[in-house]
Order: sequence, then C-alpha cells, then structure tokens
Amino acid sequence: MTTIGFIGLGHMGNPMVQNLLKAGYKVKVYDVSTAAIESLVASGAIPTNSLADVAKESDVLITMLQTGEQVSGVCLGQGGIFAHARRDTLFIDCSSIEITITRELHNEAKMQNIWMLDAPVSGGMVGANAATLTFMVGGEESVFTTAKPILEKMGKKIIYAGKDGSGQAAKICNNLILGISMIAVSEGFNLAEKLGLDKKKFFEISSNASGQCWAMTSYCPAPDVIDNVPSNNEYKAGFAAKMMLKDLHLAQHAAETVDVAIPLASEATEMYTLFVNQGNGDLDFSAIIKMLADECK
Amino acid sequence: MTTIGFIGLGHMGNPMVQNLLKAGYKVKVYDVSTAAIESLVASGAIPTNSLADVAKESDVLITMLQTGEQVSGVCLGQGGIFAHARRDTLFIDCSSIEITITRELHNEAKMQNIWMLDAPVSGGMVGANAATLTFMVGGEESVFTTAKPILEKMGKKIIYAGKDGSGQAAKICNNLILGISMIAVSEGFNLAEKLGLDKKKFFEISSNASGQCWAMTSYCPAPDVIDNVPSNNEYKAGFAAKMMLKDLHLAQHAAETVDVAIPLASEATEMYTLFVNQGNGDLDFSAIIKMLADECK
Amino acid sequence: MTTIGFIGLGHMGNPMVQNLLKAGYKVKVYDVSTAAIESLVASGAIPTNSLADVAKESDVLITMLQTGEQVSGVCLGQGGIFAHARRDTLFIDCSSIEITITRELHNEAKMQNIWMLDAPVSGGMVGANAATLTFMVGGEESVFTTAKPILEKMGKKIIYAGKDGSGQAAKICNNLILGISMIAVSEGFNLAEKLGLDKKKFFEISSNASGQCWAMTSYCPAPDVIDNVPSNNEYKAGFAAKMMLKDLHLAQHAAETVDVAIPLASEATEMYTLFVNQGNGDLDFSAIIKMLADECK
Amino acid sequence: MTTIGFIGLGHMGNPMVQNLLKAGYKVKVYDVSTAAIESLVASGAIPTNSLADVAKESDVLITMLQTGEQVSGVCLGQGGIFAHARRDTLFIDCSSIEITITRELHNEAKMQNIWMLDAPVSGGMVGANAATLTFMVGGEESVFTTAKPILEKMGKKIIYAGKDGSGQAAKICNNLILGISMIAVSEGFNLAEKLGLDKKKFFEISSNASGQCWAMTSYCPAPDVIDNVPSNNEYKAGFAAKMMLKDLHLAQHAAETVDVAIPLASEATEMYTLFVNQGNGDLDFSAIIKMLADECK
Repeated sequence: MTTIGFIGLGHMGNPMVQNLLKAGYKVKVYDVSTAAIESLVASGAIPTNSLADVAKESDVLITMLQTGEQVSGVCLGQGGIFAHARRDTLFIDCSSIEITITRELHNEAKMQNIWMLDAPVSGGMVGANAATLTFMVGGEESVFTTAKPILEKMGKKIIYAGKDGSGQAAKICNNLILGISMIAVSEGFNLAEKLGLDKKKFFEISSNASGQCWAMTSYCPAPDVIDNVPSNNEYKAGFAAKMMLKDLHLAQHAAETVDVAIPLASEATEMYTLFVNQGNGDLDFSAIIKMLADECK
Repeated sequence: MTTIGFIGLGHMGNPMVQNLLKAGYKVKVYDVSTAAIESLVASGAIPTNSLADVAKESDVLITMLQTGEQVSGVCLGQGGIFAHARRDTLFIDCSSIEITITRELHNEAKMQNIWMLDAPVSGGMVGANAATLTFMVGGEESVFTTAKPILEKMGKKIIYAGKDGSGQAAKICNNLILGISMIAVSEGFNLAEKLGLDKKKFFEISSNASGQCWAMTSYCPAPDVIDNVPSNNEYKAGFAAKMMLKDLHLAQHAAETVDVAIPLASEATEMYTLFVNQGNGDLDFSAIIKMLADECK
Repeated sequence: MTTIGFIGLGHMGNPMVQNLLKAGYKVKVYDVSTAAIESLVASGAIPTNSLADVAKESDVLITMLQTGEQVSGVCLGQGGIFAHARRDTLFIDCSSIEITITRELHNEAKMQNIWMLDAPVSGGMVGANAATLTFMVGGEESVFTTAKPILEKMGKKIIYAGKDGSGQAAKICNNLILGISMIAVSEGFNLAEKLGLDKKKFFEISSNASGQCWAMTSYCPAPDVIDNVPSNNEYKAGFAAKMMLKDLHLAQHAAETVDVAIPLASEATEMYTLFVNQGNGDLDFSAIIKMLADECK
Repeated sequence: MTTIGFIGLGHMGNPMVQNLLKAGYKVKVYDVSTAAIESLVASGAIPTNSLADVAKESDVLITMLQTGEQVSGVCLGQGGIFAHARRDTLFIDCSSIEITITRELHNEAKMQNIWMLDAPVSGGMVGANAATLTFMVGGEESVFTTAKPILEKMGKKIIYAGKDGSGQAAKICNNLILGISMIAVSEGFNLAEKLGLDKKKFFEISSNASGQCWAMTSYCPAPDVIDNVPSNNEYKAGFAAKMMLKDLHLAQHAAETVDVAIPLASEATEMYTLFVNQGNGDLDFSAIIKMLADECK
C-alpha cells in the first residue's frame, strides 16, 4: 500500500490528511507543531519526528505550507526532504508560492530523481473539509497521471495546467482576475446604490449583461442579493482578505520577473493592503466593498 | 397611427430608424446633417426642417445623440423640442449621458407635461442593425409600459431599471465593471502567457473557476481563444475604445456627484486614455491587451 | 474713487473685503446670505439687494464663490451681473472653477464689453486674513495691469499666467502636483518609519536630496519634523482635504477636456475620496498620511 | 597602508576604484569579468583570482553589484568573502538591494566578526566619475566613523542614516518620492501645456509655489525649461528609467515586508513598467513625460 508523507498540518493540511486517511491511505505526518501532529494521530495518522524521517518512510510526499521560504526550507538542505527521500519519490507541493521558487524546486527535485508537481488549490477550508478542492497542477504529464488518483481523494477538479510551475501560474493569474473583479463589482454596486438603483435590480441587469462575472454571480459582495455567500453572513469565513492579498503579492512578484505591466492588479493590491491594515484581514475578501463604501469605520 | 420623431441620425440612429420604419411606424427625422436626413428619406422617413417642426408633428420623440450637452441643446431653450412638443408627448432619450443632465431633463420634461424615459442602449452598431439592442430604461413604470412596444422594434432586451435616471445609472455601472474586467482579463492572459502557460489552457481553467467573467468568456481579448470576437479580427469593429473611455468618464462624473470611491475604474480610465491617445480610439476596447503586452508600438 | 462690488462673502470673501476696506476702497457687497452681508456692513461695507444692484453700482466686480455653477449663475442670465454691469467694468473671478466654464465666461464677458480676469488664489483663510494670498491671473495683460493694484491689497504675490483661463490652469496644475507629492511624501515617511528609520533623520537626508519637495520641506505631513505645520497641530486648519479633493476633480475635468493622461493625479483623487468619505474632509490634506499609515480608525 | 578589496567593477565600480587609487589606496580587485579586472590593472589596481583571494588579502572589502542575489552570492557560502575575510574586516556594500537581504547579511557578518555597513549611493555614473556620490550609510555609528574617510574619496556627501539597513531604507524611501514626483511634475506640465499655459510661465509659477519639488526645479522633465538636464538632451544619460523601476520594485518589496500601503508608488511602478517595456529603459527616467504626453510612439 502507498504510504503518503504529509508535511504542513494547518487549517488546510489537517482536513486534507483526514480525507486521505478516509480513503484508506497510510499517512505519515510531520509539522513543527507537535499539537498539530497529535490531533491527526487520533484520526489514524502515523507521527514522525523529523523531515528526514517522513521523507525516508514515504512513497509520496505532500507539502501544504504557507510561504515559499517554508517550502524551500522543508525541501532543501541537509535536513530537507529532498536529501532523504527515496529515488523516484512523488512529491506534490500544494502550497501557493512564488513561481520562481517552484521552478527552482522542480530543478532541484530532478537532480535528486524526485518527481515533483506544483499543485496549488482553490476552495479554501470549506473545500479542504469536503474534499472538493480544485487542484491546478504543473509538471510532467505522466507524473500528473500518477498523482491524480491521490489528489482526487482531496479534491473534485484536478486540472493539468502544463509544465513545471504551470499550476502556480494558473492559480496566480486566475486569482489576479478574481481580486480585481471583486473590487470592480464592489465599485459597481456602491455606485449603483448611491445613484438610487436598487441592488437586486442592478444585479438582474448586470448579471445578464457584459458586467457579469463570477465575483458578481457566484460571490456577490453586496449582501442579500444571492444566497449562501459571505456577504450575507457579515463577511465571515470564506476566502480571507489577507489570503487574497498574499495571492496578489505573488502575482506582483511573478509579473516583475517576466516584465509584465499589471496596473489594475497593483491597484487592487494596494486596496487590499489598506483594508487588511485597517484590521480586516480575516474577513472574507468580498468585504472590501465596505471599505469602498466607507462603512468600515 | 403613431408618428415618431427621431433626432440624431448617426451610426446608431440610422439603423434604429430603419427598424422603426420596417415595423410600420411613420418616422419624421431630424439631424444637423442634411445628408443624414436624406439617406433615411430614401428608406421612407419623412424629413423635417427644425427641432420645432419634428417636435410639433410627433406623438413620440426619440433622441440618439453623443453627449449630454447635445441632448440638453436639443431639449431646452426656445428652439428646443420641450418648448414645441405637444402635451403628453412621450420622449425617449437613448443617448448615454451624464446622470445629472438626465435628471435635470426629467424635471424639465415634467414641467412641460412631457413623459420622459432615459433609455441608453448596449449592443453597438451590430445590435442597432439587427434590432438586438439592450435598452436600460429609467422613468415612471407606466411610461415604460407605453414605450416598450416601440423599443422592442429596435432591441431584444427591454429592461426597466427604476425611476428617473436609472437607465443611465444601470448602463454606467455595468460598463464600469466591464471596462475594469476587460483589463483584468488582459493582465491575467498576458501574465499567464509570459509565465509559459498556454492561453487556451488558461482559458479552460479560469473560465471554469473564480476568474470567469463576460469579458473572458464572451469577449476574450486574447486572440484565437473563442470564436467571433474582435480579438480574432485585429480588434476591428466591436465596441470602440473611445466609447468605453466615454462611459468611464461618465462613471467618474457620477461617482464624483455622489462621493463614491472607484479606484479601479479611475485606473482603468487612465489606461484607456493612454491607449486612445496612442491612436487606438477606434479599435475595439479589448485591444487594450496589446498595450499592456507592449505590442502597440 | 473706485467702487468695488464683491459677491461671495464666505470664509475667503469676508477677509478679502475687509482688506479692501482697510485699503480705503468703497466696497458694495452681495451674498445670498443676509447675515454674511450684515457682518461686513459693520466693517464699513455697503450692502446691496441683488446681483443687478451690485453690478450697476460698481466700477470693479469681484466674485469669490465655491463652484463653477455658482459663478455662471451669478454672471449669466437676466438677473446676472453681466446683464447689468456698466460697459468697461473690470470683472475679477477669484473662485477656483472649471477651466471650461472660465473660458465660456471670458467669451461672454467680451460680448458684453466687460473686462474679465480669472484670478484663483492659493494661501487659504490664513492668507486671506493676512492679505498674503497668491493670485494666479489669466486674461489680457493690460487688464491684469489695471487690476494688479487692487489684488495687491488682498495678496502678496500677483502673478500673470497668460491669456484667458491661464489663472485657473496654473492653479489646477500646481495643485495637481501638490496633491500627488503630499501622498508621495506620506508614503516615504510611513515606509521609512516602518523600516526603522528615524523620521527626522529621513527628513535630513531626503530634504537635501532628490526627494525634496514643498510638501516635505514646507508642509511635512509627519508631525514634529518641522515647525508651524498642521501635522504638529492634529492636522487642524490648513488646507482642508475636501478642498484638495475639489482641486483634483478640477484637474480631472480639465484633463478629460484636453485628453491628457494623469494616472497619479487620478490615483491621488481616489485616495483623498476615501479619506474624505471616512469623515476627514475638514482635516488638513496632509492628514492623508494617517490613513495610509492606518491610524485613522 | 590600508588594502581595499573591491568586488564588482562595472559602470559604477570602475570609476569608484579609480578614485580610490588616485587617493593612494592599494586596491585589489575582483569581478566575474576578466576584462573588467584588466581594465583597472592598467590604472594600478592589483588583480585577484577569486573571492577567497580578495577577501584574504584585504583590510577593507567593498562590493558594488546589481542585485541582492549577487551580493548574497559574493558574501555567503564556502567560496564567499565572509568565509575567507580576516577577523575585524570592514565590509561596505554599496549596492542597492533588498532591505531584507541587507539585514540577513548584517547578521551573518556579525557572526563572522566582520564589520558591515550598507552604503548605497545616489549620483549615478556622473557622480561615480567625479567622486561626488552621496552615500547613505547604515550600521554601527563607530564603524561608519571608521569608513567615512574611505567613502569620502568616492563621494561628496557621506550620511549616517542609522542602524543596520538604514542606508538601504533611506535610499529606497527617497527614490520612492522621487519616482512619484517626477510623474507628478510630468502630469502637471503636460496638462498645463495642453491647457495653453506656457511651460516656462508654469515653471515660474509652480517652482515658487506649493508644487515645487526637486524633480521640477533641479531635473525638469519638460525640455528647455532649466539648464543641464537630460530633457534638454533627448533624455540621454542621466538616471536610467530601468534603474528607477528597479528602485521602485525594491520599495514595493520593502513595503510588503512591513505592511505599508504605497498606492502612488505602485502606480508609478506600473507606469515605469509600461515605459520600460516600450523599449525606453535606457532613457533617463524623466522621459516618462513623453509617454504620458503620447509622444513615445
């Protein structure tokens, strides 16, 4: 039976491991937090004592961490998993990180005969719990084929995006559009409302016209327009503004690397920075509509 | 039989009159350009010599002009249509103009016992020709009901947006979102491509994810991704960049009036200004992707 | 003796009239507020009952109003001052208004044989009280020469900017730079401080280097760096943020008219809009540093 | 006699070494380019074969490189200068690099008993040749005192900015203000000119008013307004737009690290990105006025 080593047992990693365990996998877990390890042992995961241990004892290694620095730290160096993983280990990094770091790790992995995929997710904690995450995957297509059955235990859509780094690229570019269009929709609804247009009426018009976008029709930032969205629930839960800000920073870094102008994404980054700095980082990112309508004080 | 007076016989007005004639209406026409009048007389329209004439002789008056100043000039003053229209004339302004001017005209019309609707359109020349325009209509609902059969001869969707000015408000707010999201999609595709992601692959991913928007899935600015869009045809025809710029200026004016912050719309306005100033005003607005990718030189 | 008619007796107009009275002029005053008139009568001004009256009885007419609409309303129409002023009256508009309106008024004045100057001021209430305003003046140079002695009673620097409208243009363009550079300095000081650089040390360095600007060296937004600035006094008094926002809107209108891209001015406009909407419109405009440092909540 | 080891012999490093040689120092030089080494040997510099060599043989080490990665590469690792420098070596990094990297290097240097200063410069090649650079220096004040006589051979202003990293912070924050104010001045002059205001007249007014800034009065982007500036010389030489863009990227990185909103700096970054991408990276940064005036095609 395949043994999966899982590193990074936070809000996302924990439910992902739970879903792998439910699917019958043997999962060895590691985290810098002992408590995080223990909480999964109760569910059947096998604890490990070090990155070296989890690397040596697994057929497949999965990381779910917060920053590129963390992923590099876990992979590289004498104590890192690349130094200790078996030849031909499959390594899937599910973290959302800088595309430059992803590509360095792909190169390093190749030199160690490790098969790496970058596979960042969308869907948040809700998706992680329900095993409905979307995985955007970069790497060799044959490796993707091997990994797919495992990813399907944690997600619903498993998309092959292309060669090394393409998973990160796809996520970054998609979220760049999302981050901007959420503010666009917010500006549109705020202006409509101040101009005396009923918000449901505006939704009816624009959702059937050229202003339509996912941020409007699936995640409307104006409350009481559509069902089951954070705006109806005081912008709790959902996709935290600080996470959107992180993704926009990743987009800026990527754009700088390849010399692309992204004026609206940069402006959106500044708006989320103001919003997060005003103490709203844990609110859903659609709450930016409140700052723009000056209801944040 | 209802006699319709139509003022403003340009690229939009001309085909709109043609469609009214086809529907069997008696249409009296006026324009500052005699040539514009004559070209419609050939199709069966009845020429008039002045605003006063067309106003006196019509049951319904329709204007399709370019600026708020023009519409004010046509409506107000001693030679204007408000001074000469019969009591209870129905007046439909199809121009896209400042919401403040629209509201002044509504007030003025009421004082003259004229029933006014603001009814800006979307759909462009293609829609005007094919009688598939969308009309977003503001004014009294009973007046809307009266006007609807006439508008249906020129358009496909006739939407009641609310009280005086709501038609303009709906169009402005919708196009604000569109203008921004077109740039958002452009930034996303440019960055994706520079990061090595195939554009069709990115479309497949993002159009099924949270980046989806009309600007992507119905009007993709990257060529050869979807069918029948200006990007496949060197950005000819379509919705001219200078018209999008005009609409964003209307949004800025409206936002200033009601004290709403629209940071992304203002940034988009500046981008289209740069683009139009570089000599691209007649290209479709989706061609902004080229400026952002530095392929405009 | 020259009789001056003064229209618009608010925070600026009142002290300007006082200074004209001190200089020995006979000043006839008019305002929509009777209280505003009466408060100046006590100082020796002569009240008038209407625009027509003040126009008929004066050699020189001065307006100091808040908006272009107000100035147009005062000048034009049957009850306006242009209809009632004597031939060859000198008319000086000290209001800060749209350049398009200024130019229309210049044209209209010429047709009435009225000699008009546009002469917006900088220096605020402090300058109005102390007669240290700067006047930026547009119109015929010979008219400027005639007006200069009068303006010198209310100001210290009387600058001839050029033909009709040049006074407004000079003020708008200067304040565009000021509005942007105040935010630039704020960003620089905020970032320096968060990076651990002492603000006085940063001032010492940058004020002697290429970052130097009036907003830094004469009006530093960071408190306790230089003397006698609003930042040392909780951003009270000074040049209100809402007035800076008004000037930036004038810049946007002007730029739209002549098709100039002003990306930083538009961004600055949005920042002041957010700031004013958060309830800070009466604070000095340098207080924007607080919003950017997230100390505004 | 003090032996100085100098690493990085490009456009800036070369003249800096020349000035040290002129001052009588023994200078050992190293660069990845042998040609760069040889060209200085002719002037009396002593060639070295490796980083290890130059580190072992010098009392003082100076680096002048292009990126943080390069500086890290030179300092760290088994072949790096920190591993081979003598105890108590003085190390001065004159490169403009990320503040996070600077601080890591300071920490690393301390552990190796090396005395480090970060000392980025302003003044460009002209300043490097004429020994008139400004050095902004971070580190221990006693170390600064030791280094000052050496820096004075290469520059005119040697400023102590504060603790570790303060040199980089001062330069980044100053150039952030400069980068923005150059665009502000450009927008002001473009708008003034389109509004019919003579540019020399506008300069006369604004340079004596609240719009004054170094970018206007010492480096005016509009040609033929002041003497001896790149705008009079087709924007050749000077401070390259691509270098300004690099500095603004450093500001963005720094701001992200400490969570500061810098909306105008981000907007300026995007404008310089568009400008550089259009093939103008080697022009002086004041040439941005041409792009904004649409004279770049």
